[in-house]
Amino acid sequence: MQTVGELGEAGVLARILARLSPAAAATVGPGDDCAVLTSAGDIVVTTDTMIEGPDFRLAWHDGFDLGWKLAATNLSDVAAMGATPTALTVALACPKSTPVALLEEISRGLSAACAELAPGCGVVGGDLGQAPVLTAAVTALGDLEGRAPVLRSGARPGDVVAYSGTLGLAGMGLALLFERSADDAGVAHSDGLAELRSSHGAELAAQFAPRSPIAGGRAASAAGATAMMDVSDGLALDAARLARASRVEVRLSGELLEAGFGAQQGVVVPLRAMLEGGEDHGLLATFPAGAALPAGFLPIGEVGEAGVVGEAGVVGEAVNSTDDPALGSLSVNGETYAPGGWDPYNKLTTLSS
Amino acid sequence: MQTVGELGEAGVLARILARLSPAAAATVGPGDDCAVLTSAGDIVVTTDTMIEGPDFRLAWHDGFDLGWKLAATNLSDVAAMGATPTALTVALACPKSTPVALLEEISRGLSAACAELAPGCGVVGGDLGQAPVLTAAVTALGDLEGRAPVLRSGARPGDVVAYSGTLGLAGMGLALLFERSADDAGVAHSDGLAELRSSHGAELAAQFAPRSPIAGGRAASAAGATAMMDVSDGLALDAARLARASRVEVRLSGELLEAGFGAQQGVVVPLRAMLEGGEDHGLLATFPAGAALPAGFLPIGEVGEAGVVGEAGVVGEAVNSTDDPALGSLSVNGETYAPGGWDPYNKLTTLSS
Repeated sequence: MQTVGELGEAGVLARILARLSPAAAATVGPGDDCAVLTSAGDIVVTTDTMIEGPDFRLAWHDGFDLGWKLAATNLSDVAAMGATPTALTVALACPKSTPVALLEEISRGLSAACAELAPGCGVVGGDLGQAPVLTAAVTALGDLEGRAPVLRSGARPGDVVAYSGTLGLAGMGLALLFERSADDAGVAHSDGLAELRSSHGAELAAQFAPRSPIAGGRAASAAGATAMMDVSDGLALDAARLARASRVEVRLSGELLEAGFGAQQGVVVPLRAMLEGGEDHGLLATFPAGAALPAGFLPIGEVGEAGVVGEAGVVGEAVNSTDDPALGSLSVNGETYAPGGWDPYNKLTTLSS
Repeated sequence: MQTVGELGEAGVLARILARLSPAAAATVGPGDDCAVLTSAGDIVVTTDTMIEGPDFRLAWHDGFDLGWKLAATNLSDVAAMGATPTALTVALACPKSTPVALLEEISRGLSAACAELAPGCGVVGGDLGQAPVLTAAVTALGDLEGRAPVLRSGARPGDVVAYSGTLGLAGMGLALLFERSADDAGVAHSDGLAELRSSHGAELAAQFAPRSPIAGGRAASAAGATAMMDVSDGLALDAARLARASRVEVRLSGELLEAGFGAQQGVVVPLRAMLEGGEDHGLLATFPAGAALPAGFLPIGEVGEAGVVGEAGVVGEAVNSTDDPALGSLSVNGETYAPGGWDPYNKLTTLSS
């Protein structure tokens, strides 16, 4: 298998570029000092990195899925502003011993995710380098097309809370991988992977190649969404962040969650997985009461005032004990809920399925 | 010394954000899913990564300089299109044992470089992660402010070739570091560094914290530059790239190079260092004959037709032996010149001073 060290930078670049599809907004694509994008108004920009070890394991993730997930995780941040994704830049670094074929597959996955989730968006530039482990930093750009951005801070008491996308499945997939395709120390191996793929295909697909509802972002904006965010670290943690940014209490309903997302693609999803499982990259949004929810969004709760007595008589507590509850809080079924969390330096969220 | 693993993501992020200055074009800065930038027309985007080991060594480079260089290397790509830099995104990944102070210093350096080289530009978003070595991926955005982008491909026979910035100094600095602050295997140490800083301050400053002529980019565009690029891999290699993109022969004059850049900041710079030394991040541009060169640009040669007999009777050969000379070539003093090069997987350019 040819390695990147054997082929060299120019050769690797040619192989990658051959597998990338162009961006409709790019008047100058890869090959100059910068790409040039047409823009009619305000743009949005976000960046997200995936690093072998903490973020993915080559024993589990194949190149195509990695490329797909790299695109999807960034595209969903663009969608969460109510914008239409226009372009990605991709910085890849890897050991000299990395097979060229792996980078080719990543490129194919990036293009496929753009084609399916965000038609017209493509890779407009990048960078190649050497690193001890495979490292991929993606920046995504989007066009607001004249709309105002939908921020995390716009939720108002009385709004409906809604969600679109898979919920909990990706976290269940990760938990299954740790249970059945890792040793006692948590080191990934590929034993049991083929069996998992056939017995738990939905959970693994959600974990490996999330199908984020990208077009739902601008649809939510058009439908009057007051706040929106990408759910990457778990619904509870991200809903608590939205609550704090908006200085409201986000009141999630277990009943609505069960009704909407308790069974997905034939899989029973427990409430705890819906609340704590990360990496689904769906969209959490709030809408004025009575608004018609766009396709894909289902109601999961409502917005209340921060720091006041909730339905079940429990005063909303803040996510972080040093916070003032008046700064925003989360409740589930009327009880204050303290979400688990993801910290890249200290914690790996796992869920029993 | 507190480490990032001890402080955790939220704490590290707060420390970093406190050291970043805002971008004038950002209506939404860090903290939401994306930043939002005002844009009046076409924009440019570029990305460049620096990884501990191949790209920098913590025994030599301090955090402030690293942040500065991260900004400068990306800002110069934006300038090379004739655009004004507006925003950076920064993805940082590092081991848990990394001192928080190092990331704080990188943040200070990023802000200082923006303030000096590209006022109004700032960091609008980022990402934190864990990696085996310090890894920094920066994406820079720029606004063309209604101007057409200046590409590599626009040079025409008869144009003047000009350069702005330090030339060869950064490569001389790197060579000095390898000679005097590394062991026989090329492993960096800090012995001799203090002495080098005092005896060869100009070379080390160019290597550690390049002062790229960012404002020169839009000035060159306004002066009618026909082609432009950032010189990061050495003048000869990058001039050969410009020649091929434009399908011309770039004819560099040793006499003009010596006259313009043979002595910089009190340092004698040999022709070979000017041609082969990388990492100066100056601007190489071509202008119509007779154009008034903008401040900072000095003439270093002229553009001829590709694949024809040069002044000294030597047919221009292509950079790569598989290329057709008609596709573009480089000559120095009328002789075909085959530049050395930089390949992140295989080669480290060093120069004897």
